[in-house]
Amino acid sequence: MENIIITGHKNPDTDSICSALSYTWIKGQLGEKVTACRAGNVNPETRFVLDYWKVDAPALVEKVEEGQKIILVDHNEMSQAVDGLDKADLVEIIDHHRLGGIVTSNPLFVRMQPVGCTATILYNVAVENNLTLPKEIAGLLFSAISSDTLYFKSPTTTEKDKEAAGALAKIAGIADPQAYALEMLQAGSAINSMTAEEICHGDMKEFDFPQGKVTVAQVNVMNGEAAKAKWPELQKALQAMVDGGEADTSLLMVTDIMDEVTELLWAGKNQDILDKAFGKAEADGHYHLPKVLSRKKQIVPPLTDAFKG
Amino acid sequence: MENIIITGHKNPDTDSICSALSYTWIKGQLGEKVTACRAGNVNPETRFVLDYWKVDAPALVEKVEEGQKIILVDHNEMSQAVDGLDKADLVEIIDHHRLGGIVTSNPLFVRMQPVGCTATILYNVAVENNLTLPKEIAGLLFSAISSDTLYFKSPTTTEKDKEAAGALAKIAGIADPQAYALEMLQAGSAINSMTAEEICHGDMKEFDFPQGKVTVAQVNVMNGEAAKAKWPELQKALQAMVDGGEADTSLLMVTDIMDEVTELLWAGKNQDILDKAFGKAEADGHYHLPKVLSRKKQIVPPLTDAFKG
Repeated sequence: MENIIITGHKNPDTDSICSALSYTWIKGQLGEKVTACRAGNVNPETRFVLDYWKVDAPALVEKVEEGQKIILVDHNEMSQAVDGLDKADLVEIIDHHRLGGIVTSNPLFVRMQPVGCTATILYNVAVENNLTLPKEIAGLLFSAISSDTLYFKSPTTTEKDKEAAGALAKIAGIADPQAYALEMLQAGSAINSMTAEEICHGDMKEFDFPQGKVTVAQVNVMNGEAAKAKWPELQKALQAMVDGGEADTSLLMVTDIMDEVTELLWAGKNQDILDKAFGKAEADGHYHLPKVLSRKKQIVPPLTDAFKG
Repeated sequence: MENIIITGHKNPDTDSICSALSYTWIKGQLGEKVTACRAGNVNPETRFVLDYWKVDAPALVEKVEEGQKIILVDHNEMSQAVDGLDKADLVEIIDHHRLGGIVTSNPLFVRMQPVGCTATILYNVAVENNLTLPKEIAGLLFSAISSDTLYFKSPTTTEKDKEAAGALAKIAGIADPQAYALEMLQAGSAINSMTAEEICHGDMKEFDFPQGKVTVAQVNVMNGEAAKAKWPELQKALQAMVDGGEADTSLLMVTDIMDEVTELLWAGKNQDILDKAFGKAEADGHYHLPKVLSRKKQIVPPLTDAFKG
């Protein structure tokens, strides 16, 4: 590819796919030649969104070539990025996560805001440039915000996300935004449609600490009680990741959106550090975390602090 | 300090001081409580600017407390930042350099643009927020742009810098912008006013590579031939830094602004890597680099690439 590619993170979620597509549309309107890509498979929630808005998935890119100009959306950590990024020419980052330690040789554009979703930033970019969003792009951006904020239930949600989502729902012509969002989240609930191994790898992020590699996956469920039947299988899949050398500590957030609670299952070492981060474990070893919905805001910060010592 | 502090890098240059002061003014207009600080002594060029515009230097901060909310301007590398940053609460970065590898626990605001000066970004922030800059703030921002771009001679200069400087000179009421800029640069030419040791430490940046710590200082001169008389002294000061354990490789750019050439003096190890970055050295060991004016754009990238292997 000769032009610039735009991609979200590995194990892409709805924000990574929809933001890559939407920012490609915005850049095109501004006269820049870019191609939307994805760094992994389309998950069931995102499949629902793409089908609903009749938009093709972006091209799969598993590795970028040396010198390839690239724009990252929805991430800024090497371990979450497409293979080859270290030799690519990173020209821009649009993100809403913590700073992840990437080092570049040259100055670049970076726009990061502490909001709930990359799509919220992109909505603002469109507004600042006086662009009129087509219905399907507004639909993609609304879907991304609904996904990342769990339809505003996540504590990562900001007023800017709600404002953007409200405006986008109107542009997209969504008659009942809440009904659409819940249907989408239900479609994305992997607990029944995926294997335990797939769940532990699906929406997973890696973090490299001096004490070892930590993976944190998350699965949202609408009914936490019903999901308990799956725990033994999930526990086995987490242990297999450790045994197979994929992680030193392997975590899975089973997040009940409706009851607003996360059951944090895990396998591997560093229990003392996890205790420091999340308090005393239950008798069976997992952590019961009421009101915890957000990996980024409620799991990664205490985890990072505890591993820092 | 209870409120948020804004500071530029250690060994502050005119951009670091003027951007901290100007962003503090902007934040104040937007109703935010912030305090301008500086992470080191005011250099002669910046002293000229502050005296000219009758603005007090920001408060010196040598170390920030744990949990102190802090905004960085003009840098985003731990090694260039005020001591204690690793335990502080970094809430925002405004910068125009490469990404420097900082890792945070939480999401934050970041605005980076590949322009010649932080002050150019701040001018745009003021415009976007419909703020009317007072004369002295416009004067500080104009000075910072003139300093970082060597009055548009540096290859880091972009159209955005020229546009901003043009508008700022008018707001500040500077009758002859070029005459003002040259007077300022002359005042800042440390070659005659500072000791060799001070020159090698004044505008210096540190880089940690696996092969060792590299320091890169820069001194601008108006007359490169006259400066040659100082080389033996400067060479001795660079060697003293290596002998004293301050650096494994210690570099000094003696940059002739008028003739647009840098004589790169150095001491320490890693000559093979320097050869890879800058070509064959002269007989006396230094590197003669015509058309090289910018540390950020012309020295750091080849240096980083060469040390990466």
